[in-house]
Amino acid sequence: MSFSLPVYREPDFSAPALCGAPDAVFAAAPCDGVAPEHYHATTIFPEYFKVGGRWLLACESRMDCVAVLEDGEIHTREFRRLRAGDLVAVGRTEDGRDGIYVHADGFAQEDGGSGELFSFRQGRSRETAYSRDYNQIYDLLRHEREHGFVTWVLGPACTFDHDTREAMSKLIDAGYVSGLLAGNALATHDLEAGYLRTALGQDIYTQRSEPNGHYNHIDTLNRVRLHGSIPAFVEAEGIRDGIMCHCVRQRVPFVLVGSVRDDGPLPEVYADVYEGQDAMRAIVSRSTTVICLATTLHAIATGNMTPSYRVLADGTVRPVYFYSVDISEFAVNKLRDRGSLGVKTIVTNVQDFVVNIQRGLGL
Amino acid sequence: MSFSLPVYREPDFSAPALCGAPDAVFAAAPCDGVAPEHYHATTIFPEYFKVGGRWLLACESRMDCVAVLEDGEIHTREFRRLRAGDLVAVGRTEDGRDGIYVHADGFAQEDGGSGELFSFRQGRSRETAYSRDYNQIYDLLRHEREHGFVTWVLGPACTFDHDTREAMSKLIDAGYVSGLLAGNALATHDLEAGYLRTALGQDIYTQRSEPNGHYNHIDTLNRVRLHGSIPAFVEAEGIRDGIMCHCVRQRVPFVLVGSVRDDGPLPEVYADVYEGQDAMRAIVSRSTTVICLATTLHAIATGNMTPSYRVLADGTVRPVYFYSVDISEFAVNKLRDRGSLGVKTIVTNVQDFVVNIQRGLGL
Amino acid sequence: MSFSLPVYREPDFSAPALCGAPDAVFAAAPCDGVAPEHYHATTIFPEYFKVGGRWLLACESRMDCVAVLEDGEIHTREFRRLRAGDLVAVGRTEDGRDGIYVHADGFAQEDGGSGELFSFRQGRSRETAYSRDYNQIYDLLRHEREHGFVTWVLGPACTFDHDTREAMSKLIDAGYVSGLLAGNALATHDLEAGYLRTALGQDIYTQRSEPNGHYNHIDTLNRVRLHGSIPAFVEAEGIRDGIMCHCVRQRVPFVLVGSVRDDGPLPEVYADVYEGQDAMRAIVSRSTTVICLATTLHAIATGNMTPSYRVLADGTVRPVYFYSVDISEFAVNKLRDRGSLGVKTIVTNVQDFVVNIQRGLGL
Amino acid sequence: MSFSLPVYREPDFSAPALCGAPDAVFAAAPCDGVAPEHYHATTIFPEYFKVGGRWLLACESRMDCVAVLEDGEIHTREFRRLRAGDLVAVGRTEDGRDGIYVHADGFAQEDGGSGELFSFRQGRSRETAYSRDYNQIYDLLRHEREHGFVTWVLGPACTFDHDTREAMSKLIDAGYVSGLLAGNALATHDLEAGYLRTALGQDIYTQRSEPNGHYNHIDTLNRVRLHGSIPAFVEAEGIRDGIMCHCVRQRVPFVLVGSVRDDGPLPEVYADVYEGQDAMRAIVSRSTTVICLATTLHAIATGNMTPSYRVLADGTVRPVYFYSVDISEFAVNKLRDRGSLGVKTIVTNVQDFVVNIQRGLGL
Repeated sequence: MSFSLPVYREPDFSAPALCGAPDAVFAAAPCDGVAPEHYHATTIFPEYFKVGGRWLLACESRMDCVAVLEDGEIHTREFRRLRAGDLVAVGRTEDGRDGIYVHADGFAQEDGGSGELFSFRQGRSRETAYSRDYNQIYDLLRHEREHGFVTWVLGPACTFDHDTREAMSKLIDAGYVSGLLAGNALATHDLEAGYLRTALGQDIYTQRSEPNGHYNHIDTLNRVRLHGSIPAFVEAEGIRDGIMCHCVRQRVPFVLVGSVRDDGPLPEVYADVYEGQDAMRAIVSRSTTVICLATTLHAIATGNMTPSYRVLADGTVRPVYFYSVDISEFAVNKLRDRGSLGVKTIVTNVQDFVVNIQRGLGL
Repeated sequence: MSFSLPVYREPDFSAPALCGAPDAVFAAAPCDGVAPEHYHATTIFPEYFKVGGRWLLACESRMDCVAVLEDGEIHTREFRRLRAGDLVAVGRTEDGRDGIYVHADGFAQEDGGSGELFSFRQGRSRETAYSRDYNQIYDLLRHEREHGFVTWVLGPACTFDHDTREAMSKLIDAGYVSGLLAGNALATHDLEAGYLRTALGQDIYTQRSEPNGHYNHIDTLNRVRLHGSIPAFVEAEGIRDGIMCHCVRQRVPFVLVGSVRDDGPLPEVYADVYEGQDAMRAIVSRSTTVICLATTLHAIATGNMTPSYRVLADGTVRPVYFYSVDISEFAVNKLRDRGSLGVKTIVTNVQDFVVNIQRGLGL
Repeated sequence: MSFSLPVYREPDFSAPALCGAPDAVFAAAPCDGVAPEHYHATTIFPEYFKVGGRWLLACESRMDCVAVLEDGEIHTREFRRLRAGDLVAVGRTEDGRDGIYVHADGFAQEDGGSGELFSFRQGRSRETAYSRDYNQIYDLLRHEREHGFVTWVLGPACTFDHDTREAMSKLIDAGYVSGLLAGNALATHDLEAGYLRTALGQDIYTQRSEPNGHYNHIDTLNRVRLHGSIPAFVEAEGIRDGIMCHCVRQRVPFVLVGSVRDDGPLPEVYADVYEGQDAMRAIVSRSTTVICLATTLHAIATGNMTPSYRVLADGTVRPVYFYSVDISEFAVNKLRDRGSLGVKTIVTNVQDFVVNIQRGLGL
Repeated sequence: MSFSLPVYREPDFSAPALCGAPDAVFAAAPCDGVAPEHYHATTIFPEYFKVGGRWLLACESRMDCVAVLEDGEIHTREFRRLRAGDLVAVGRTEDGRDGIYVHADGFAQEDGGSGELFSFRQGRSRETAYSRDYNQIYDLLRHEREHGFVTWVLGPACTFDHDTREAMSKLIDAGYVSGLLAGNALATHDLEAGYLRTALGQDIYTQRSEPNGHYNHIDTLNRVRLHGSIPAFVEAEGIRDGIMCHCVRQRVPFVLVGSVRDDGPLPEVYADVYEGQDAMRAIVSRSTTVICLATTLHAIATGNMTPSYRVLADGTVRPVYFYSVDISEFAVNKLRDRGSLGVKTIVTNVQDFVVNIQRGLGL
């Protein structure tokens, strides 16, 4: 069970197309939040911009943003964060012709081992054989616990079931969860289960619907709001189990972003979804593996801002692994087309997925 | 094809349980955004609160909120909008015992005609016979165009297809659309189609993927942001078709609420989802029929805030009809359990639904 | 982890409705394969017919068949198996009025323990909490291994994945599989995997598509046909793993019934689907638990012929447990409405289900 | 609205690879129902076999069968229909090397008009824009009514709804249905609706569940069996509407093949599914367009035996169009990968599809 990261190979800058390429052109943003004509949109891949004859790698990328030259570095920035006058890369080619080079196959030459981790991705469905994927995830998670940062993106269904909730808690305690991204519902139902044993009024083990159980989630919300924060609620009400409780105890950072269908919301929830995006991206920027479970909304949000690579502190470039697990092929396929080191999808009930991971890691 | 609204029957206040009921008890909210212990949570049904010996009907209800007594009237209010000291109804019974009466069957005694419009709701699936539902919708929409307010809640898939987009436009022009609720994506892709003939870079008629078509939606967003508003963009760029364009021209009010997965966003989009909820509820409060198409997020958001009835200006109480159309049984079932005048679900591709409605109305 | 079967309570034959009931009326079938007018159709429940003043329990029931009086016993028979002159029970009431009594709640009074095993069945979906269901299945299977007969009904997806196939093999070896019902595809792909390591040409572990791999399943079929039977093929080609191989070795009876989409078929496959039904029913009649995985066709076929009870050799009446597992709510719901001891559904990928069962049983 | 068939271009037999190719090798089948080692498996494409220096086109192809040389012609034959000694083509290349040439792009060079009818097939889902597909189907059906043979393959859901059933009837009467392939359930529920106004006991318009309505389908079956045939039943019971009734009246040939889940069955249903396959193939061999609605089982069965081309009486080679319509992406995708003139899929409720086709054809 040896896991080794594929090695990144830089572009061959001595190739004629690159060494003869002109400098990239940058144009000023005409006003706040608006890019200049012919702006270049970024991808999930490492992108290089020729500036003063040298190729600069964008430090942190994400797709569908623009590349801003600032203090001699390339910053990948959302349109809404542009300020009038920002210098934005212009040009819609990716092969160097415009001084912009998108390096889509930096990890691709690798063969054997994890290099081919992601080679069969076409048409994954409920009938794909997932045994090897599970084994790879076990290996990957053991590696990442020591050397990476694993972000989990969870939909509410991850906390509706007793064993699933317990398995997630064990994963948190064992150090396999470095960050949590979710919405108001995941946290609310998880806290409801910790407080009242139910999710949406149904016992999370016996499935019994409690009398007046429809009050349970709003009672929980009201109580957390009274205490002022999730940690204060956990403390004051003596909550002893669940995803949020274990995150609080293990000091796992979490970002909860609101949505238009929320009740409550919980105090920590971002009402402004674009501030929420910024907070999520701060977590994503540290991530080396991202695992999305049963949430189309947050999985797509996270997928939008997750590059295929990360530049480590020592300058090493490594891949970022991205998994999306959902019972619906349609949901996971929404995320699929992200290129050669893209999303790996598993079609199943997340309850079973999480319990499998727990058992597969020996927890 | 005669359509008549079912008549509302008030509770029999002379019945012993009601006439002998005590006054409702109201307790002060302990702080902003928090309800007192044992608060009463509202439902989608007409609810009466006994105050000074008289039964007051909450003027505008919605589920999972609290009932606040203010200026002698009952206001249904979200937790987040509570202010410290607000007087909140307390009690968790619904039969008068606590001075609170939930009137779940005010329209139910009706028989014949539209009274039984919603009697067979169990287990609707792709195999339910929908002919009669279509006929009822045609009748209902013709009625509502003259006497009601029809709010459409649209997911992005409503604008990916040429005929669907054209059919929605005809419905708008013919007066069958009184309000529009959606997210950033619906409006963006609709404007992309008006501007560049594509949705996500694919021609909405020929299905051809355009070269560099992945730029199209962000180019559209960037351009609208440059012009500062959707109407300004429509005007300046000479947009001549589509849902947003026709809404602008016909002065149909629309509310676009942001989500964490948005690019852009468009200028009109609410970044703060709870402000967005308030804006949506202002539309919903005027609605007599609500039709949700291919959007789980916004359909649930709208369902959360839509009561089963509306009190008209002259005091008449009439039902609010609520339809949810989606290709996934799971999605429509999420909304189903809203009681006897609840959600009517249709399981199909919204493209066909919209075109059917257009043709069925003779447009 | 004590498991005890709920006790069957006979109807109270001394109740006026039953003790005053007339004898059941039997009419002759007018011709082969046709029931007389007003025939009584059977259900999944224990049914009693009054004959000569005594109530006779149909020995083996199934739904949508007729009750034939023969040699003083009641036989539940398919229409196609009727012969002209067969005496068929007539009458469409179920409360004794026509001498026919359907005992739908024979196990229902039980409370505690397994008696409430099946009490929460409404609206099961991907979001139902399944922890307790898994625990109950573990207990049930341990009980049945000693005292019952467990029939598995498998779709082809059960053999597309390495771990799933291995888990099923372990369950067979450990005695948890008493009978197997399936179609041509399950057996073909399982044998393909044993013979060539692939399913439909894709490696069942690495997911690699082999060159010319589309030949693999027809090569397998051709080879089995050459050898003349599955056991002969297993023997001659030295097949060492897989579901069919382990069934052959452990002498687990299997019935494979053909369908119109078959290639081949394998020699054991019933070409005549109604002969196939008879063969299946011979297995079902011995079954005390039935578990259907990822096959709508065979699950419905089996569900059609499985009663809710079985009369053991000593005359004891016990429940028959029926599980249906599929990733689609629509598929499992097709089977759901079979009354109080009916189908228990689990919505997940069968790969995970089978591996979970294996691990949960400590194999 | 001009529709013209793409022109077939024969292979360039003067190309070195073909003109220098050896004769194909044929080996004798070792016993009934078994192909010799290294047999060549056929595809959906036109295949040429070099015999005595001349390239012979297989007259009627289908995939996953073998090519038998008989009386100087190439016959594509199922394994189960092989007889010992049949001369079977051997060789697993497709480029001429073994005297076998598979001509996958005979219609592909065409551009404009219907030639590009099928060029965008990747990833079709509920969100694909279907307007143009509908327009193409209208054109195609008008063409085929005069010049082709349109086979419809229907699942039971096609007859559960009033308008759908009526629309199918109009299509039959107007000459758009040349053949019908289905199972026992489609015919049974359609006749139940004609006889008793219900499908599975539910009124096909009002959706009302009739008292004792679960008897309706078996009453219908019993009655048809009494009369001895569907036409006799239609005549004797005065059935006046529905798919089967209109097929009987218009003398549209139908093939009903049994399955293991059938009740009854109806007299016309093939009990032996492989005899059923032969009967289906007799219809398919005449077909120029095939449209499958809401039936995975029969759609795959039909897809298995439908080639991409048909040789007309005058020797012309024309494409065969194949549509599959279902509400589930997973179901339609099962059929998709059939090459360049392959299956066109539409993801929607077949009720709406059929009504759309009826209206689009002006019926």
